[in-house]
Amino acid sequence: MPSKVVTFGPSQPLLLESGKSISPVTIAYQTYGKLNAKKTNVIVICHALTGDQYVIEDNPTTNRPGWWKRLVGKGKPIDIDKYFVICSNVIGGCMGTTGPSSINPKTNKPYALDFPMITINDMVKTQVMLLDHLEIDKVLSVIGGSMGGMQVLEWMTSYPNRIHSAIPIATAAYHSSQNIAFNEVGRQAIMADPEWCEGLYIDKKKRPAKGLSVARMTAHITYLSEVVLEEKFGRKFQDRSSPTFTFDADFQVESYLRHQGSNFVDRFDANSYLYLTRCMDYFDLITENKGVLANAFKDFKSQVCVISFTGDWLFPTSESKRIVHALNASAANVSFVDIESNKGHDAFLLNEPNMLNAIDGFIKAVESKNC
Amino acid sequence: MPSKVVTFGPSQPLLLESGKSISPVTIAYQTYGKLNAKKTNVIVICHALTGDQYVIEDNPTTNRPGWWKRLVGKGKPIDIDKYFVICSNVIGGCMGTTGPSSINPKTNKPYALDFPMITINDMVKTQVMLLDHLEIDKVLSVIGGSMGGMQVLEWMTSYPNRIHSAIPIATAAYHSSQNIAFNEVGRQAIMADPEWCEGLYIDKKKRPAKGLSVARMTAHITYLSEVVLEEKFGRKFQDRSSPTFTFDADFQVESYLRHQGSNFVDRFDANSYLYLTRCMDYFDLITENKGVLANAFKDFKSQVCVISFTGDWLFPTSESKRIVHALNASAANVSFVDIESNKGHDAFLLNEPNMLNAIDGFIKAVESKNC
Repeated sequence: MPSKVVTFGPSQPLLLESGKSISPVTIAYQTYGKLNAKKTNVIVICHALTGDQYVIEDNPTTNRPGWWKRLVGKGKPIDIDKYFVICSNVIGGCMGTTGPSSINPKTNKPYALDFPMITINDMVKTQVMLLDHLEIDKVLSVIGGSMGGMQVLEWMTSYPNRIHSAIPIATAAYHSSQNIAFNEVGRQAIMADPEWCEGLYIDKKKRPAKGLSVARMTAHITYLSEVVLEEKFGRKFQDRSSPTFTFDADFQVESYLRHQGSNFVDRFDANSYLYLTRCMDYFDLITENKGVLANAFKDFKSQVCVISFTGDWLFPTSESKRIVHALNASAANVSFVDIESNKGHDAFLLNEPNMLNAIDGFIKAVESKNC
Repeated sequence: MPSKVVTFGPSQPLLLESGKSISPVTIAYQTYGKLNAKKTNVIVICHALTGDQYVIEDNPTTNRPGWWKRLVGKGKPIDIDKYFVICSNVIGGCMGTTGPSSINPKTNKPYALDFPMITINDMVKTQVMLLDHLEIDKVLSVIGGSMGGMQVLEWMTSYPNRIHSAIPIATAAYHSSQNIAFNEVGRQAIMADPEWCEGLYIDKKKRPAKGLSVARMTAHITYLSEVVLEEKFGRKFQDRSSPTFTFDADFQVESYLRHQGSNFVDRFDANSYLYLTRCMDYFDLITENKGVLANAFKDFKSQVCVISFTGDWLFPTSESKRIVHALNASAANVSFVDIESNKGHDAFLLNEPNMLNAIDGFIKAVESKNC
């Protein structure tokens, strides 16, 4: 089923952190379960860089299965028989919400690089516009991993009174130098592709598939871990027993990465990739708060469950600990779950029973206190 | 001063591990110090992926300073007042030794992808040809880091009787799945560049600068460490105090990486990069020895000093330990030095006094026993 959609017209422009604005703004979103009469059973899910609003069901465009089916659904920790779940595609994305591939009303052509830069704050502001539209005042919990976790942190700092609780997973209060570096490589790979056409590829009927594929391959390595790569692929050959002594994908890991790259270009917009990675790079709650992260959370006195994974080197446990320390210093009610895992950063999307159990218990506890 | 050069003609083809051969073969090399009368003071240096034979003096093409001046020179641990040092550009390279940019005698055009695949074994075989040409039977020590370290291990397994000692640094007995993955991203970036022209860029007067630059940027991140990136750049802006909200290189780390990328394309051949990375991927002394690495060293009874760095995530300490265990199991005389460092893989090229001291002591000990 296609997404629900709401469009905010000229009277409700989205004022951005950069000082610019976007209008009109369309938000594509999915809801699961039923809103109760008191509107106290709402859970907001924030998706990651290449995620979307299709949390449970197959994405109708890509036919990929819902990305958080393990966590959300009937009888799952986020049980849609009890909760009303909302997930919207982020501003700047490419799954129905306004982004660089949307039509710029001033030119009647896709925005491309005329799309203004967006930030994590802008993403959350858009989600708040959606809540206002749905006439929901306060949500039981907001949850997300990676870039989704950054949005959760932004909810906590910018809209503390609109959430009873928050679950930031596998994330950080700012993007590290190394993560900026990897993102920059991805962007340079896209921009190096002549079919990117300075961003105007849609209008010119081109597609920077090779550049986007290289960007995805680089990023994909960072989502895994050395251990999982070694276990899954090691040095196993793909469909052969000895090296070809060529540049073919002799090794399974090469074949897997090429597949990840080529699949990605069919489902993701290259300019969205540029904007969303840049948006992550700009995220920095520490500098914003003059070096004192605790100040980011000074108005947030509710419950938080911070989750990290030991095998995550993109958003390592130390980054989650930094968040926990700041929350402690701001007198929030914090649980911290560091989960033993060798699955790398992607662990939050995979079968991690300890994560599912932690979220299950946390949400039930929050509900019993607040509903 | 330009390199010394020796060319082996049709009567001395280089027979490769792949079953193919190369002829003629030119080896470009540098020597430092004087060969003593008994020819007992020879040290062979093996360079890394993007290294070259200019160990001490500026590279005359790139004007870059010698890459191992800290270790080699008058009064340095490898003292050229005492030792006769030889370093040759690897086969497949682009600094004077025959490689894919050399002229293919069959076509009178650059080999490009008609250059046969080379392996670490082929590299060392070429170095042995050079020693034979110089009428040197046995060397005091062979030393190198990273891909240079792979060559050292290959010397130990294939030519154990030609060396009195070996110093493999920041290396591994095989290339890991993750390292193959990063190399594959680099190769795909080069091949995605239309100016690569299926490898024929020299003949077509093009240059895959953008692709090679992206490849270098990716690799460069892996040579550093999260700690060093955080210390060196953190989230500092480049020539500005606040974000531009554009895709400019706002952050210093982006500017630095772009500079690394663009510098590299002026000094390195894209096809050489393909061949040399592939060569590293194929290196696997474990599979070659049916899973028992100790068998690789069964004929090597001399002295080895294995050196690793704690902050190296490309060739982590665990890989060096694996080599040490295998050497122990084969009754070699092994020292193992794991150096506390946050400089990442590149530590072996940088100012690491503990490494310099370890090499100094080891070589003196070897000399006193063997000369």
